[in-house]
Amino acid sequence: MRILLLNGPNLNTLGTREPEIYGTRTLADIEAMETERASDLGATVAAFQANGEGAMIGWLQQQAPAADGLIINAASYTHTSLAIRDTIIAIGLPAIEVHISNVWKREPFRHESYISGVAAGVIVGFGASGYVLAVEALVGILKEQAPR
Amino acid sequence: MRILLLNGPNLNTLGTREPEIYGTRTLADIEAMETERASDLGATVAAFQANGEGAMIGWLQQQAPAADGLIINAASYTHTSLAIRDTIIAIGLPAIEVHISNVWKREPFRHESYISGVAAGVIVGFGASGYVLAVEALVGILKEQAPR
Amino acid sequence: MRILLLNGPNLNTLGTREPEIYGTRTLADIEAMETERASDLGATVAAFQANGEGAMIGWLQQQAPAADGLIINAASYTHTSLAIRDTIIAIGLPAIEVHISNVWKREPFRHESYISGVAAGVIVGFGASGYVLAVEALVGILKEQAPR
Amino acid sequence: MRILLLNGPNLNTLGTREPEIYGTRTLADIEAMETERASDLGATVAAFQANGEGAMIGWLQQQAPAADGLIINAASYTHTSLAIRDTIIAIGLPAIEVHISNVWKREPFRHESYISGVAAGVIVGFGASGYVLAVEALVGILKEQAPR
Amino acid sequence: MRILLLNGPNLNTLGTREPEIYGTRTLADIEAMETERASDLGATVAAFQANGEGAMIGWLQQQAPAADGLIINAASYTHTSLAIRDTIIAIGLPAIEVHISNVWKREPFRHESYISGVAAGVIVGFGASGYVLAVEALVGILKEQAPR
Amino acid sequence: MRILLLNGPNLNTLGTREPEIYGTRTLADIEAMETERASDLGATVAAFQANGEGAMIGWLQQQAPAADGLIINAASYTHTSLAIRDTIIAIGLPAIEVHISNVWKREPFRHESYISGVAAGVIVGFGASGYVLAVEALVGILKEQAPR
Amino acid sequence: MRILLLNGPNLNTLGTREPEIYGTRTLADIEAMETERASDLGATVAAFQANGEGAMIGWLQQQAPAADGLIINAASYTHTSLAIRDTIIAIGLPAIEVHISNVWKREPFRHESYISGVAAGVIVGFGASGYVLAVEALVGILKEQAPR
Amino acid sequence: MRILLLNGPNLNTLGTREPEIYGTRTLADIEAMETERASDLGATVAAFQANGEGAMIGWLQQQAPAADGLIINAASYTHTSLAIRDTIIAIGLPAIEVHISNVWKREPFRHESYISGVAAGVIVGFGASGYVLAVEALVGILKEQAPR
Amino acid sequence: MRILLLNGPNLNTLGTREPEIYGTRTLADIEAMETERASDLGATVAAFQANGEGAMIGWLQQQAPAADGLIINAASYTHTSLAIRDTIIAIGLPAIEVHISNVWKREPFRHESYISGVAAGVIVGFGASGYVLAVEALVGILKEQAPR
Amino acid sequence: MRILLLNGPNLNTLGTREPEIYGTRTLADIEAMETERASDLGATVAAFQANGEGAMIGWLQQQAPAADGLIINAASYTHTSLAIRDTIIAIGLPAIEVHISNVWKREPFRHESYISGVAAGVIVGFGASGYVLAVEALVGILKEQAPR
Amino acid sequence: MRILLLNGPNLNTLGTREPEIYGTRTLADIEAMETERASDLGATVAAFQANGEGAMIGWLQQQAPAADGLIINAASYTHTSLAIRDTIIAIGLPAIEVHISNVWKREPFRHESYISGVAAGVIVGFGASGYVLAVEALVGILKEQAPR
Amino acid sequence: MRILLLNGPNLNTLGTREPEIYGTRTLADIEAMETERASDLGATVAAFQANGEGAMIGWLQQQAPAADGLIINAASYTHTSLAIRDTIIAIGLPAIEVHISNVWKREPFRHESYISGVAAGVIVGFGASGYVLAVEALVGILKEQAPR
Repeated sequence: MRILLLNGPNLNTLGTREPEIYGTRTLADIEAMETERASDLGATVAAFQANGEGAMIGWLQQQAPAADGLIINAASYTHTSLAIRDTIIAIGLPAIEVHISNVWKREPFRHESYISGVAAGVIVGFGASGYVLAVEALVGILKEQAPR
Repeated sequence: MRILLLNGPNLNTLGTREPEIYGTRTLADIEAMETERASDLGATVAAFQANGEGAMIGWLQQQAPAADGLIINAASYTHTSLAIRDTIIAIGLPAIEVHISNVWKREPFRHESYISGVAAGVIVGFGASGYVLAVEALVGILKEQAPR
Repeated sequence: MRILLLNGPNLNTLGTREPEIYGTRTLADIEAMETERASDLGATVAAFQANGEGAMIGWLQQQAPAADGLIINAASYTHTSLAIRDTIIAIGLPAIEVHISNVWKREPFRHESYISGVAAGVIVGFGASGYVLAVEALVGILKEQAPR
Repeated sequence: MRILLLNGPNLNTLGTREPEIYGTRTLADIEAMETERASDLGATVAAFQANGEGAMIGWLQQQAPAADGLIINAASYTHTSLAIRDTIIAIGLPAIEVHISNVWKREPFRHESYISGVAAGVIVGFGASGYVLAVEALVGILKEQAPR
Repeated sequence: MRILLLNGPNLNTLGTREPEIYGTRTLADIEAMETERASDLGATVAAFQANGEGAMIGWLQQQAPAADGLIINAASYTHTSLAIRDTIIAIGLPAIEVHISNVWKREPFRHESYISGVAAGVIVGFGASGYVLAVEALVGILKEQAPR
Repeated sequence: MRILLLNGPNLNTLGTREPEIYGTRTLADIEAMETERASDLGATVAAFQANGEGAMIGWLQQQAPAADGLIINAASYTHTSLAIRDTIIAIGLPAIEVHISNVWKREPFRHESYISGVAAGVIVGFGASGYVLAVEALVGILKEQAPR
Repeated sequence: MRILLLNGPNLNTLGTREPEIYGTRTLADIEAMETERASDLGATVAAFQANGEGAMIGWLQQQAPAADGLIINAASYTHTSLAIRDTIIAIGLPAIEVHISNVWKREPFRHESYISGVAAGVIVGFGASGYVLAVEALVGILKEQAPR
Repeated sequence: MRILLLNGPNLNTLGTREPEIYGTRTLADIEAMETERASDLGATVAAFQANGEGAMIGWLQQQAPAADGLIINAASYTHTSLAIRDTIIAIGLPAIEVHISNVWKREPFRHESYISGVAAGVIVGFGASGYVLAVEALVGILKEQAPR
Repeated sequence: MRILLLNGPNLNTLGTREPEIYGTRTLADIEAMETERASDLGATVAAFQANGEGAMIGWLQQQAPAADGLIINAASYTHTSLAIRDTIIAIGLPAIEVHISNVWKREPFRHESYISGVAAGVIVGFGASGYVLAVEALVGILKEQAPR
Repeated sequence: MRILLLNGPNLNTLGTREPEIYGTRTLADIEAMETERASDLGATVAAFQANGEGAMIGWLQQQAPAADGLIINAASYTHTSLAIRDTIIAIGLPAIEVHISNVWKREPFRHESYISGVAAGVIVGFGASGYVLAVEALVGILKEQAPR
Repeated sequence: MRILLLNGPNLNTLGTREPEIYGTRTLADIEAMETERASDLGATVAAFQANGEGAMIGWLQQQAPAADGLIINAASYTHTSLAIRDTIIAIGLPAIEVHISNVWKREPFRHESYISGVAAGVIVGFGASGYVLAVEALVGILKEQAPR
Repeated sequence: MRILLLNGPNLNTLGTREPEIYGTRTLADIEAMETERASDLGATVAAFQANGEGAMIGWLQQQAPAADGLIINAASYTHTSLAIRDTIIAIGLPAIEVHISNVWKREPFRHESYISGVAAGVIVGFGASGYVLAVEALVGILKEQAPR
């Protein structure tokens, strides 16, 4: 099982950016946690971060044919990028949407997600741990092969 | 650690009700899974289901003083019950909102949640497994005692 | 053929409550008319009234397995109860929605119904007679066994 | 008792038009059923169908002085014709609105009706049988002479 | 100076239709008043009434080439007919919109007019007298030939 | 018959202010025209202009007890002043709303009027002549004593 | 004079629930204050609290025939329960709506009330004292017997 | 304790203006009642009424430095004046908003208040008595010195 | 292959009506161009224009059984006629919607089309040439017999 | 060059009013800064403050004929006064809108400005310094005589 | 004549991506068809595809000075990219918007286009053939040099 | 003091792009003006322009650690890019938003800014001079070190 982990704009500055909202773990920490947990469950992780919509789409197109599932935190693009939504539909992999902070406690324009409607599931508000929950959930889905 | 597990209207008919949406596991199955996983993590579970808003509120008021956290699937009340939201604020326990199906793939009136804004985190779309992820997440939060 | 007749909040005070809107027939009168007309058509009626959403849901869950169809006047819950809508979906019986007064002549918040979208048909504005029309219509549907 | 039966655009193609929505009965069948049931109840029926708003209005103006009540299925004009609404007010006959399909299960622009607010009652979703229920209801209203 | 006077649906029943709103003068009375007042001011009147949008448009297209101005009460079509608006633009005559009753005291859907934005001026709420005011105003505009 | 003529903010600069919209007649011209036409019809005019909402309200309160009707162009306050609306209700005189330009050809925030709903009638878009039409209309209403 | 005092969901936990919003007085304290003040004014108080909509409605139906007025704090149901609104209309007693906190300083969904439109008056933001003001106001209304 | 009592537009005509809505007490009566009740409670009242927003603001700015609290009925400005809201914030006194009629039973544009969100509390619908309740409530707040 | 060409209100005045928007070609020119191009492609054209909704619907009902596809410019009815939409669904022919001007550069009420959602494709803004493109496109669709 | 400086409601209390939002400089300080900076740039300043809409409009009408440009902070009227907008259009001077605080960080009803659409430019959020920037900008515009 | 052909995000995966919506032709096929058809008509084509908004804008800026017209399918950016709209305005070439699928049959957020309002024309729903129609239309426009 | 100057999409074509809106100065001119003025005030400027959201975010992340403030004209992204807003929050520098044209005179979708709510201040409509005002304002803020 090969899992894609895609993080969006500003997530490369995790750990220093507004730690009271996003916590103190860096993106490297998260990718390491993710890889480790995936490895326990018999999966590998290919991770990528980009600040640009186009770069994110390009990476997904490139990686998808050799992958089994996707964990994505599209950050601000969650709420504005129809293009990433369309890429997720196009590649056809089961996807899990993760958010570090609880977007529901923030401004209304963070309450609508272009991703959720095309994801298998959504995990919101658990800090860096949300990524670990997501890898567990994704492996579960891939094993059952009956995502919904 | 004592965890409350509260399920709302129609979840008592899980397993037979629209299995193509909600799966074939019964509520008893889910409560058992939850108890077992909680036990592994050193926690106990007190479970309740009700079809009425008042009954759900009453149970939360009664159980909260002796509990450490809450896992709640308020079902249809998620989208209509300000009263349950206010009860969650009032009892002051960290709460995790779970939905079995991916509400974002369904009617627009299922996209707004009164619960999410007062929950610590939200887990949506993973079927019965969502409850297990929730218990892991809640125990993690309780251990860190630094929910956000 | 066994038909469920469920009436919602404040309909137990029919006859005395705002008779210029709801007429002078009591709920007992209506249930009797319903039973008689059903009997003419070869059906029996099980009737219930409750002021609480939970009680209405509970009764539907209990009765549905042994019933063939539902006539429901959810009164004020028509416009606010997603939970009753979800119960009607869950039990899977053909349902007919009845309103005594013409809700379209009243405040705008009475123009949207959570029930109509999951009912087989809707009968509005004929006073107590609407229930009789409903039983005729429901028996017709059950006989054709081709509800739509 | 003389009852007007007015059908709007495209209802002249009933029976062949989308039978999975509108059924297989033709408009002639429906008019015959209506006349027969009215006759049983001691009433006569004058029936008309038109595709144009103006023709429908003209017929109503012409027929109303010699009629006691109206059964109307304005089809698509239900949702767009303020002029037909105003004609119903102007002629002052008790009117019953009928829809063959359950408009509430269809697009949102079929959920608002210009007719309902000026009708005595509304019958939705019972196929051709809805017309029969309507004639029964209308005769009832005319007999009580206490429409509401 | 040749003035067109166009009245829309249901205005042919003026005098008998809801006299408490629309007064007791018939359309013939109004056309006579209009002709007389126009005559005083050196103008002739060509009058027409139709219940159908198409008939109204057709008459305007036919009459416009030989006319200098238009007085129009489109009745219910005021609020729903983009086609009549487009015809008024197309014929290019200065137009005055008249309403017998004060539409601003009635339902909100009577507050928006497709006609007003393409009319030279609007006269609302003066009963049959509004037509007389309109003919005066229109002759004034035509004399100045500087409408705005 | 004593008629009040009240003009609102910026109408004191008529004649020089945006003449392509408001024409070249000054407020003094208009008040003179109004007085003359009223005199022809056997009425007197008391005229006032103010830039402030409070001053307009105060003048209405003072003049109303000795007056029979009101012609008002509240200018920009038409669209923002609930207080002037409430004063018109309070004084209870039949009121005619006048606008020099056709507000319907301008920005959407000029399409809603707080005055129209409490006026007897509305005259829009005829330049300074609108005031003359208004005095004719008002005298007509006062003579019939049957405003509507 | 017999006054009903009805409190809604979560008000049974007053005193301990978010005291910075709702104060430190318990519901028992408030009911005692109310009874005492009513007694001074020659009235008795029947008090009830429930967390369920149905229980609140049932109590109102039962108590209303023997009561003269109602003081109600429907808590969260204020903003979601059309059923309680309909019960207040049905029982026909003059009602006073009370809120402990100033709902206008809180989330927008607390700014609309289903109760206010059917209450005689509304008292908001005075903490527990609001109930005392309400009993004074209600007794005043009952004495004048000219509620509005 | 010195209390400011500020009344807005048209309240100077109380007693004669629409008595079926606003009652028969004049503003002088109300100011006298207020002064008397305040005196009982050990407070003095400085009263003012104005029809203009600017005059109301100017008086508040002048009086506030020597005052302890404010009772305000901004009348129509309640719904349109952000400037008065900002003045209340600026002067920093605890303020009580009063309305004579129940604004919730009237047009929707009277349901939003710019004042409520910056007031300590709101009293609506009790006629002239509302002012007396307000002075009691304000003195209570000033004594506790714990406004909220 | 037999193609229907249906034009709506005011298109009979093409060539003289606002030529800066609609060009100088008459409807006869367009019908000729269409017929010629269709002929090149092996198809015949039956053309019709009407100003009335009802006439358009009637013609479609009559012609459809012997036709293979439809090119329609419903003009103003595009934005208001649900009835024409329903007729297009009912007749079941592949339809191409054409607009001469670019409706997207005009008022917002021309941005929503009732036709587009039931058309195979839409061609907007190419003047009279749009009709030629449409016949090419329609023949293409009919040849592939795989419309989408 | 003669520059008008107009400040709206509550700005006369600058320096003492909510200094954490509006700073500690008084209006006199600002007017002095403005005069000094203008003088450096070869311009004079005529300054005025009023709490009333009418007074602001009157001063603008009076001063405009002898002035070259306008700096305006309409305070709360920014968001509610169409009348001041219309005065700015009427006087035809290039205008610069200034706000001391960043209105975009405050309530949504402060995000829409009636002034911005008729101003040459807008300067928001720089405290008292914003006025100095405005005088520089305005002199620049006047020198180029090519505002846009 | 040199024509630019610009395709947006995910269109590089045409042929494999959701072929039931987008067909089986690859982007290379489409570019070849386009070049061939353009060549027939005496034009050349410069084609580009990008997944990023910035890359699309950069290419347009670079190519525009040496080009005569643009055919653009901005894919998902159609509905979200104001920047591409602004680039089309800035380069000033006549542009034709193409969509492969009929966006009007899909989600509402695909019904609004930032591109349509700045395009010469729009072609929607004809699959790959739409590009061929577009090149014909564009050459027509360029030949007439009278785009509109 | 080191100041970042970031310009968004299409601003690299300033001087040639729609000069009637954006003026004739090129971006190089503006950067030179900015550098010169900054130098006068003791500051340096690092300037960048990009057409892509990702490139703008990347540059900000890279430059921010060594900078003291930001001047940003995000052009079209102002209205669509939540990601740039989030980057400005993340880097924590005081930011000034500049727009060359007065966006308030343009389409409504240019009236909402994602940047304004996280900027220290906003300068709109002064052409290229706006950048010079911004550098003055920013240096002022940095010197006071008390931005608000």
